[in-house]
This record gives sequence, structure tokens and C-alpha cells, in this order.
Amino acid sequence: MGPGPSDVYPRVLEALSRPTVGHLDPSFIRMMDEVKSLLQTVFRTKNELTMVVSGPGSAGMETCFANLVEKGDTVVICQNGAFGGRMKEMAERCGGKVILVEDSWGRAIDPAKFEDALKRNPEARLAGFVHAETSTGVLSDVKTLAEIAHRHDCVTVVDAVTSLGGVPLEVDAWELDAVYSGTQKCLSCVPGLSPVTFGPRAVEKLKKRSAKVQSWFMDLNLVMAYWGSGAKRAYHHTAPINALYGLHEALVILLEEGLDASWARHRAHHEEVRAGVEAMGLELIVPPPERLPQLNAISVPKGVDESAVRTALLDGYNLEIGAGLGSLAGKIWRVGLMGCGCNRKNVVLFLSALNSVLKSMNAPSRSGETLQSARVR
Amino acid sequence: MGPGPSDVYPRVLEALSRPTVGHLDPSFIRMMDEVKSLLQTVFRTKNELTMVVSGPGSAGMETCFANLVEKGDTVVICQNGAFGGRMKEMAERCGGKVILVEDSWGRAIDPAKFEDALKRNPEARLAGFVHAETSTGVLSDVKTLAEIAHRHDCVTVVDAVTSLGGVPLEVDAWELDAVYSGTQKCLSCVPGLSPVTFGPRAVEKLKKRSAKVQSWFMDLNLVMAYWGSGAKRAYHHTAPINALYGLHEALVILLEEGLDASWARHRAHHEEVRAGVEAMGLELIVPPPERLPQLNAISVPKGVDESAVRTALLDGYNLEIGAGLGSLAGKIWRVGLMGCGCNRKNVVLFLSALNSVLKSMNAPSRSGETLQSARVR
Repeated sequence: MGPGPSDVYPRVLEALSRPTVGHLDPSFIRMMDEVKSLLQTVFRTKNELTMVVSGPGSAGMETCFANLVEKGDTVVICQNGAFGGRMKEMAERCGGKVILVEDSWGRAIDPAKFEDALKRNPEARLAGFVHAETSTGVLSDVKTLAEIAHRHDCVTVVDAVTSLGGVPLEVDAWELDAVYSGTQKCLSCVPGLSPVTFGPRAVEKLKKRSAKVQSWFMDLNLVMAYWGSGAKRAYHHTAPINALYGLHEALVILLEEGLDASWARHRAHHEEVRAGVEAMGLELIVPPPERLPQLNAISVPKGVDESAVRTALLDGYNLEIGAGLGSLAGKIWRVGLMGCGCNRKNVVLFLSALNSVLKSMNAPSRSGETLQSARVR
Repeated sequence: MGPGPSDVYPRVLEALSRPTVGHLDPSFIRMMDEVKSLLQTVFRTKNELTMVVSGPGSAGMETCFANLVEKGDTVVICQNGAFGGRMKEMAERCGGKVILVEDSWGRAIDPAKFEDALKRNPEARLAGFVHAETSTGVLSDVKTLAEIAHRHDCVTVVDAVTSLGGVPLEVDAWELDAVYSGTQKCLSCVPGLSPVTFGPRAVEKLKKRSAKVQSWFMDLNLVMAYWGSGAKRAYHHTAPINALYGLHEALVILLEEGLDASWARHRAHHEEVRAGVEAMGLELIVPPPERLPQLNAISVPKGVDESAVRTALLDGYNLEIGAGLGSLAGKIWRVGLMGCGCNRKNVVLFLSALNSVLKSMNAPSRSGETLQSARVR
């Protein structure tokens, strides 16, 4: 129940151990086509350039910036947590001049501030923002942010690492241009792959580049010769065959449940966690309309050693939760409800275990008696 | 029996499906320490900067160049196959001015030509070459090449993707500076990870950089905060947990057999393949002293449709072999004997199946009768 990697479906773990075939084997090529089609369904897009980067979410993020930034380009990046900061770092290393729009950690991106930055930097043609900030548990309104970006002629890079599968994400309807995600959050697959989709604006920007993409490994012109359509595939690099078996299975499981049902499940169990921690006298740091169901950022009560609580949960209950990052280090716990880990059993376990641990540390707890009587398992 | 991914040990496949724990879980950190130590043994090095890049071999290659090349640097690259060409492409994208030393595809790198290029370009401080060219089945003498490079004050980048575990590789004794490999060749692990080791010269060059590494994902200054020693690990990206379980198991298996025994096994079965194809009247394209045991490049006889032969082997025998790349496309087959796929059963299957397929196509074959009577399995 940390911020990811989340628990992995047993069917996905089983799929990983299927025999490894060649990356150009016809049966594997057919499976890649299926992965692509499943991803289009899950991203809610018809984008032809939809594929899987052979690296973790950070490699997907860098793939977007490496392909879309050219030296000297102005790039507007919104930062309301750790991953906006990573976007800035990557865009700069790709030669971009970054205009950073900062919001408080724990709050959604403010569309007005974003638009103001675009007005002040009319030369900007690229903007980046995070849909679901895993570092703070905040959901931003990327539909509105994309509308604003397009009004100012900017292509958008959207971080959907933690949002995909857990909350509504509509790549085509919201006209998101370059979107990357990860496999280890609400898809409940193992970490190590990054689904990426490029829409028409992003493809056009990529085609208009004057210089080569600075990364050979991440150059989508080359990657797509392998992931593209048709029987003819050109070798680019050796794909992570078995990890892709796992992703295929995870996407099948998600669509068996249905996207709407998955989103509703994440929301429902989040409400249970919220009710439980509030009953303990604890607070979620994010205002209700901006809360991300799959990542619950809980204030550490005054006088409580946050690290000791996490250790006690891990040692006593085999339960992992996350620490705060950056300016929130030491101040919050991050409790994930992602993919197959998002279920009532986990909610009950977490609330009961946290309550017991806090009581044993003599921390403030209002309704500890009631919660502690709940069965732990 | 293609050029990789090779067959994967059942124990490695089983390891992949172990439950996913967090990338900062104490038990996982201990396993990372073991992976690092196992890799030091397999690379024959004491290099502290020995770790696993969370991407395939190409990501390991790019990690070496991204960390060691700065804009305007002269880089001498030897090319005697596809992967030297990839080195050139990557070094250029990192801002390097590449001096290419070309040898014939199918021949080892000529040390005299390499030294000549270094003499003509005394400003060069980095040189790259491939130990085992998977595209042609050639083994080059990287010990000699590294000695030459060091005489001319060059740090070396060595491609050991296909050599690690299959032929002698002595990182410390040969003073190789930056070495990358892959998991899907003689380690018989799944594709998707790249073991990398940096020696003192490479570390010094990295520390002296004037500009940031252009890739955030591949910046070893950041990666090592996660892979470094001690209990304190900083989050960089989410490691591919389950793939690392597999690599750990593959390294344990390799060291159970012993490096020397593994090298001898690869050599012995290569000799069996050589004898068999020569008995069929076919030729290996590489001169004997330069042959790579784990990748046998066989000339396609005149008048034979090489692609039809590969398809017949795949459809009729469930046996994959590789095609030629680049200037050798259509001219050779590439037959891998890597890791657990390097065994007598596979040798017999391959020779028998190839002989039958060629006979059915009325291709020249001298001793077909004898070979076809061997049991196909």
C-alpha cells in the first residue's frame, strides 16, 4: 500500500514466467499488436503512435521530452510535487528553457497561473503537467490545462503514471498530445515499462524537428519502426519480452473489470480510507475536490515519528506505506490504493494496523477502540 | 537459437513470478547488493560502480556514452558490424565528433588501424569497440585494444552484450573502463536489463564533466544514489523489481556452473556446430581465430532463399535462428549457442533440421543422409 509498485495480480506474475520467444517472432508481434490495441482502449485514444517504452515511467517521461524539445525551446512546466520537478530537469537536459509555474505541494495545478505563464511567454510551444501527483496525492484538471495550452499554441506532455486505470483519463476527448504512464501503479503490473501515446499535434511536432532526437534509445522515429503497424518490423532494440507478457495480462484484467468499474472501485475504497483516518482524528492534506483516490496523503500527527510508524507497519503487519518526498518529507504518509491492492481487505488492514501502531506510541487517536477491534487480515 | 534473446532457465522464469516488493524495501535492497556483488564476480572486477541499467542493452550502451561524452569531444569508434554503428550514432547524439575506424563485417577489429586513428586524432579521449559482435559472430581482442587506447590517453567503452558469460571477459585484468552487457544472451535471463560497470578511469572522466549528463534517466550520478553502497538509498526511478529477481537467479546459476566451465561449454558446442555445418558443405564466414562460439554466422548457399529456410525451421521444428543484418542481410544465418540454449540437444536438432530443410529445397548438401538420420529432438 505504498505509492507503487502496487501489488501485482497473480495472473500477471504467472504470465511473466511464460517461455521467452524472440522479439521478432510472429507470435510475439501479434501479441505486441494486441498490447497496442489494449493500450489504445485504456488510454481512450485512437492514436496510431501508441506503444510501450522499454523502461520505467521515468524513461517514458524522458521519451516525451527528448522527442518534443529542441535546443532553445521555451517549455512551460507546472510543478505541484516531485514529478513536475523531474519534468523540468528533463526538459532542461534536452536543451529547453523552462518556465516553471509553481503551485503548493498538496494542491492541484492552478489553471489561471498556468495561462498567465503562457501569456507571458508567447514563444512557448510545449507545456508539461502531471495528472496525478504521486508525491502528494493530488489530481489536476488536465482537460482544462490542455484547453488552455492549445489556446496558446502549445503541445502538451501529460504525466499519467498514477492516473491510468485509477481515475478517468480521456486522451482523445481531452486532446492530450503526448501522454506517458507506468505499469506499476493502477495497472497492477510489475515495474519496468512505460506506455506512451502521441496524438496528432505531438506527431507533427516530432516530424518538424530540425535536429535528431538526442537519445537513440528513445527516438520514436526508430522505436516506431518496431512498434508500428503491419507485418514488417525493423529491429531497434530487444524488447523486454516477458515484462510485455505481464503488461498484456494486466490490460486484459483491467478491461475484464471495465474502466468505469475500476475507476469507481478506486473512488469507493478511497472514501473508506478517508472515513477511517478521519475517525482516528487524522487528516488528508489535500482538499476534497483535488484528492487522488489511489494515493492518500495523510498528515503525520505532531510528536509522532513517521519513520517508526512505517517500520512498525512493515515489521508487524508486512504492510508497506510510503513516506513524504521533498518539502513533505517527514510530514505525510502516502497510502496507495492501486490496482489489485485497492480492495476492502487492504483498507481494513491498514486502518486497524495504523490505529494499533499509533496507540502503542501513545499518539492522539479518537476512535481507536472501535477500529482496533476490527479483524486484522 | 537466434542471436538472442536466448532460452531462459526455468529457475529464472520462476523467479520472475515472485511477489513484487517495494523498490526501497529492505529485503529488496539486500538483493540488489547481492546482484551487484554477483555482477562484480561475473565481470571479474572490483569496480564499486557496478549496477544494472533499467533498460535493455542499448540503454546500457547509451548510458556509457551519455555519461562519458561531452559536446565537441572526439570519440574514436571501431565498427566491424551493426553494434559499432550504433555506438557511433549514440556518441554523435551525445555531441561527440566521431572518428570511425571501419573493418569488414565478419572480421575482428584491426588493432593497427585503431592505433593509427588514435595517432591521427590525438585530441581523442574516448574510444569505443565491441567485444563480441552479435551481428557477425566475431570476437575482437579487447585486451589489446584497451592497451592501445590507454597508451593514447583514451578511456574505453566496451560492448560486452554477447560476451558476458560466454567467453573470457576480464574487466579488471584487461583494464576495460566502461563496460555494458545485456541479460538476454549468455546469462539466459529475460531481455530488458543492462549490467554496467565503470572503472576508475571512467569514474574520473564522469566526475570531471563540465556539463550535466544530457539524460536524466541515465545519469549515473543519480542512478548511483540508488545503487550505491550502504543502507541509505535515494529514490531515482522505480526499479524493474521482478526482472531483477530473474537476473539474480541467472547470475547464481552461472556461478554454480562456474565461469570457466561456462566458457568451455560454449566453446565445445560451437565446435560441434562448426563440424556439422562443414560436413554439410556450408561455411562459417568468420576466420577461425576470430570466431565467437556463441554466435555462428553461416554462409547461405547460392540459390537458397535464406528467409524460407528460417521460416521452415520455425514452422517445422519450432526452431528460431537469426537473419543477417546490414551488409550481411540475406547472406548469412546467425545461429546462437547462448547460456542454457548452448547444449548438445540443440546442436543436434539444429544440424538435423537445417539439413532436412536444405535437402527439401534441393540445396547443395554433402552428407545429408548421415545427418538426417539423427533424431530430431
